[in-house]
Amino acid sequence: MPQHSVKDLARPSSTVLPTVQQSDRLLAVLLEEFRPIFYPKSIAVVDASANERKAGSKWVRGLVAAGFEGRVYPVSSGRGTVSGLEIFPNLRAVHGEVDYVIASVPKQSVLALLDDCVVKKVKAIQFFTAGFSEIGTTDGREMEAQMVEKARQSGMRIIGPNCIGVYCPENRIPLGPSPLGKLGTSGSVGFISQSGGIAAKLAEIGIARHINFSKIVSFGNGIDLDASDFLQYLAADTKTSVIGAYLEGTRNGRRLFQTIKEVAKAKPVVVWKGGRTEVGAQAATSHTGSLASSAAVWVAMLKQAGATEVHGLEELSDALLIFQDLGRWKGHNVAIVGGLADGGGGISVSASDSCTETGLDLPPLSQRTREALTRLLGEVGSILRNPVDVSQAPNRDPMALSQAIELVIEDPVIEAMIVQEDLDTFLSYSSSAELERINDFFVRLGGAHSKPLIIVLPPGSAEAERLSLEQRLLKASIPTFPTMERAARAIAAISKYNSHR
Amino acid sequence: MPQHSVKDLARPSSTVLPTVQQSDRLLAVLLEEFRPIFYPKSIAVVDASANERKAGSKWVRGLVAAGFEGRVYPVSSGRGTVSGLEIFPNLRAVHGEVDYVIASVPKQSVLALLDDCVVKKVKAIQFFTAGFSEIGTTDGREMEAQMVEKARQSGMRIIGPNCIGVYCPENRIPLGPSPLGKLGTSGSVGFISQSGGIAAKLAEIGIARHINFSKIVSFGNGIDLDASDFLQYLAADTKTSVIGAYLEGTRNGRRLFQTIKEVAKAKPVVVWKGGRTEVGAQAATSHTGSLASSAAVWVAMLKQAGATEVHGLEELSDALLIFQDLGRWKGHNVAIVGGLADGGGGISVSASDSCTETGLDLPPLSQRTREALTRLLGEVGSILRNPVDVSQAPNRDPMALSQAIELVIEDPVIEAMIVQEDLDTFLSYSSSAELERINDFFVRLGGAHSKPLIIVLPPGSAEAERLSLEQRLLKASIPTFPTMERAARAIAAISKYNSHR
Repeated sequence: MPQHSVKDLARPSSTVLPTVQQSDRLLAVLLEEFRPIFYPKSIAVVDASANERKAGSKWVRGLVAAGFEGRVYPVSSGRGTVSGLEIFPNLRAVHGEVDYVIASVPKQSVLALLDDCVVKKVKAIQFFTAGFSEIGTTDGREMEAQMVEKARQSGMRIIGPNCIGVYCPENRIPLGPSPLGKLGTSGSVGFISQSGGIAAKLAEIGIARHINFSKIVSFGNGIDLDASDFLQYLAADTKTSVIGAYLEGTRNGRRLFQTIKEVAKAKPVVVWKGGRTEVGAQAATSHTGSLASSAAVWVAMLKQAGATEVHGLEELSDALLIFQDLGRWKGHNVAIVGGLADGGGGISVSASDSCTETGLDLPPLSQRTREALTRLLGEVGSILRNPVDVSQAPNRDPMALSQAIELVIEDPVIEAMIVQEDLDTFLSYSSSAELERINDFFVRLGGAHSKPLIIVLPPGSAEAERLSLEQRLLKASIPTFPTMERAARAIAAISKYNSHR
Repeated sequence: MPQHSVKDLARPSSTVLPTVQQSDRLLAVLLEEFRPIFYPKSIAVVDASANERKAGSKWVRGLVAAGFEGRVYPVSSGRGTVSGLEIFPNLRAVHGEVDYVIASVPKQSVLALLDDCVVKKVKAIQFFTAGFSEIGTTDGREMEAQMVEKARQSGMRIIGPNCIGVYCPENRIPLGPSPLGKLGTSGSVGFISQSGGIAAKLAEIGIARHINFSKIVSFGNGIDLDASDFLQYLAADTKTSVIGAYLEGTRNGRRLFQTIKEVAKAKPVVVWKGGRTEVGAQAATSHTGSLASSAAVWVAMLKQAGATEVHGLEELSDALLIFQDLGRWKGHNVAIVGGLADGGGGISVSASDSCTETGLDLPPLSQRTREALTRLLGEVGSILRNPVDVSQAPNRDPMALSQAIELVIEDPVIEAMIVQEDLDTFLSYSSSAELERINDFFVRLGGAHSKPLIIVLPPGSAEAERLSLEQRLLKASIPTFPTMERAARAIAAISKYNSHR
C-alpha cells in the first residue's frame, strides 16, 4: 500500500491542513494511484471466452472496436480467440504485466480471482459480478469484507462489485460490456455513478448533446473505492473541469460531505441523489446495498457543501452541459428574445415565468438600447421590454432581426441572452434558407461575443431539422435546450454556483 | 341577437338550475351560435391582396392548400387573384353569403370593416389586427368598446383582436396565416389560448405526438367571446372529450371560475396559467391586455374548480395526450418495468422517486406473480419487487422477457404499467431485430389489454430510431413520454381527475 492513501485526504476540515508541499505530494500520490484505473497499459478481461454472448467477450470486443492502444488479454477456461486475441486459461498464464482487470466471473470465483490478481501484481480490478450486499444476505456482506481484505494486503484497488466500471474516451476505453465499443469525444466533464445503467445512459446523452467526458466511473456497491475517492481524483485530474454524480447512498456520510465541500471549492459538483423517496430508497438498497438517508438530510448536506442538486437525468445533463460550455460565467441579468417566427407574446409571458421562478432577473433594457430598437423596429410598445418580441420587425426583415438581437446582447445591463427558436412555426412562415441565415448569424454571434448566447429549440413537427440544428449549435458550444424551463434552470444553476464562490 | 345567449350559461351556481329541457335548448343555441365559427360555409379574408407577403394572402393560400371545402373570398383594394381566387374590392362586393371573416387590416380600418360585416350579415369575425388594449392606451381600450358595441347590434361575434383565430382539422381550417395550410388529424382534444404563438406551437406538437385536435381557438384580447364562452362551447361539442387552455388573465374571474367548475364536471379541463410571476404578469398585460391576478389566487381557483393545473407546454401536451389516450381510466397502482437493456437498477430507483413523488403507488406484486416470475427468471431478490428489473432474465431471452412483462400487467394489484426503453443502450447490447420484436409485443399488449401500457423512451444517441418508434407507439394509442418524470406526472394527473369525480 502506498505511504499516503487517498483516504488521507478525507480529513475533517478541523484538523491541521497540510502545507502546500504536502498537498502537492498528496495530489501526486492520488493521481498515481488512479492512473492504472483510467490509463492502464494492459487490461485482462475474465471471463472472456469465445462465446459471443458472454459479457466478458463483449467487453474484449468493445475494447478492440474502440481502438484501445494497450494490451488486452482475454482470460477463460475455454480455448480459442476473441476479436483475434488468444484466450489465456487463467490470469497467471498471461505473459505480460496486467495493470487492470475487468471481472465478469461467477460469485464463487471472485476470491480465487483476487488471489491470482495479487500474484500478478494487478493494480486495480473492477467487478461486473453482482449478488453481494445488494441482495441483503449475510453471505453477500461477508464476501465483500473478504474481497476488501485481500485487496488491501497487496495495495490493489477494487471498483464495484455490481458495476460496469470505467469510461475514458481519451484512453479509448468504452463503457460497459457492449461489443460496439462506442466512444464520445474526450472532454472536460467527469461523472461518477452508483448505477451502471445511468452511467451508460448519460454517456449516450453525452454523445447526442456534445457533453464531452473526461472520465465516467460506475462503481456499484463501492466496497473499496467509493464516491469520495473518485470525487477526490476528479478534483485533482487536470482534464476534468466539472463533476457530476449519481449517488444512492454512502457508508461514510461525514467523509462524503467533507469531500464534496472541498471539491466544490475547486470545481462545480452536480449531484443527483437517487432514492429520495421511501420506495426509491428501498429500491436503492436492493440495487447497490446502499442505506439511503432521508431526502431532507441529503438536501441540506448538498446545499451546505456547495453542490448543485439536480433531480433526474435531464436536469443532470443540462447542468453538466452548461458548466462545460459556460465555465466560470457569472451573472443573473438575462435577456429573452422570442418571436423569430410569428407571435412571440405567449413565449414572452411563459419565458418570464420560467426565468424569474428560477431566480434569474429580466431587467429592462437600457434607455439607449430601447431608443435604438425603436429606430430599427418602429414605435412598438412591447419591443421596449424584456422579453423582446422581435416578431414586430417590419416584414420580419432578416437584417433588422439580427441587428435587433445584437443591440440586445450588447446592452450593458444584459449578462446573457436566451433566444427561443420554434423551427416548425418558423418554417410555416419563412423559408429554410432564412432559417439557415439566422442560425449562421447565431453561430457567429455565439463565437464572437463574450456574453453567453443560449438557444431554446422546442420539439414539434420538424424534428429532423431540429436535431440537425441542435447538433450544429451544440458543436459551436452554444448551450441548447428543448424548453425555456430547462434553459432557465441550467443558467440559474451556473449563476448561483459561480456567484456564490 | 338570439333569445338565449351563451352568456346565460354563466349563472352563478346558486341560481335556480334550468330544467333538462331548458338545458337542452340552451345547448342547441350554443352549438348553433358557434357553428359559423368552426364550421363556416364561406370565409372572407380581408386584407388579402396579390402581394404574397401580406398575412391575409397567406391565410387564403393556407385555406386553399388545406382543402377547405367552403367558399373563400379574398378581399382587398388591389386587383388580381390569390391562389386562383378573384379578389373582391370590398366585403360588400362579395356575391355570396359570408359566414365568417378573417380580418388582417390596419387598426384604423377596423370599424369600417365591422360596418360592412353588419351589412353582409356576417356571423363572426376574427381579428389578427393588434394594437388595442394590450398597448395600454386609452385609445386602444375605447376602440375595443366600439367594436363590441357594433357587433352586439347585429348579433355578430368577435374573436380577438390580436389573435390567429380558429383551427378545425375536421372542417379543413388550418391555424394562422401560414401558406402551407398544415392540418393534423381530427380528434377529440379541444384547446383555447390567449396566445396565438402557443396555440400554433401546440398544433405542431399535436402533429408530432398524435395529440389530435377537434378545435383550437386563439382568442387574444377576447373582447367579445372570451375563455368562458369557448369553454362552454367545447363542453357542449360532442367531438371534444378533453379541453386544454392557455390563459393569461380574464376580465370576469367569477364567470371563468363558475364555467371551469361546471365544464370540469363533464370533461377534463387542463389549464396552463401564463403570467404567474410578476415579470410574467407584466408581459401578459402588454401581450393580451390581461390583468393577471396573483398566482396563488389562480392555483386555489383552479384546484377548487376541479381543473388540472399544468406549468408549461410540455406538461400541457403530456396531460392532453394522456387524457386523449386513456380517457376515463381510474387507478393509482402502477408497475414499472426497466432493464430491457442492461442495468435497470438505477432506473428502478429513480422511477420509484418520480412516481411516488407525484402520488402514484408502486405496490408490491402479489405472491402469485412473484412465484411465477421466480420460476421464469430464477431466484433473484430484486425481481420480486416493483419496479421490476427484467435485465435479470437469463441472457435476456426475449420470450422470457415478454412473459415476465405479461405476468406483471396481469397482476390483479396492478392498474397500469410503465415500461422504460432506452433505445441507445438497448442497441448497444442487442440487435435492431430484437428491438423490433419487443416493440411488436408492446403494440400487441397495448391493444389487447384493458390496463394501460405507458412507454418511456428517453432521448439519447439513437434519435432517428427513437422518433420512429415513438411515432409507432403513439399511433397505436400507447402514451409515450421521453422521461419517467413526465410519464408519472401525466398519469398522476389523470388518476387524480378521474378518481376524484
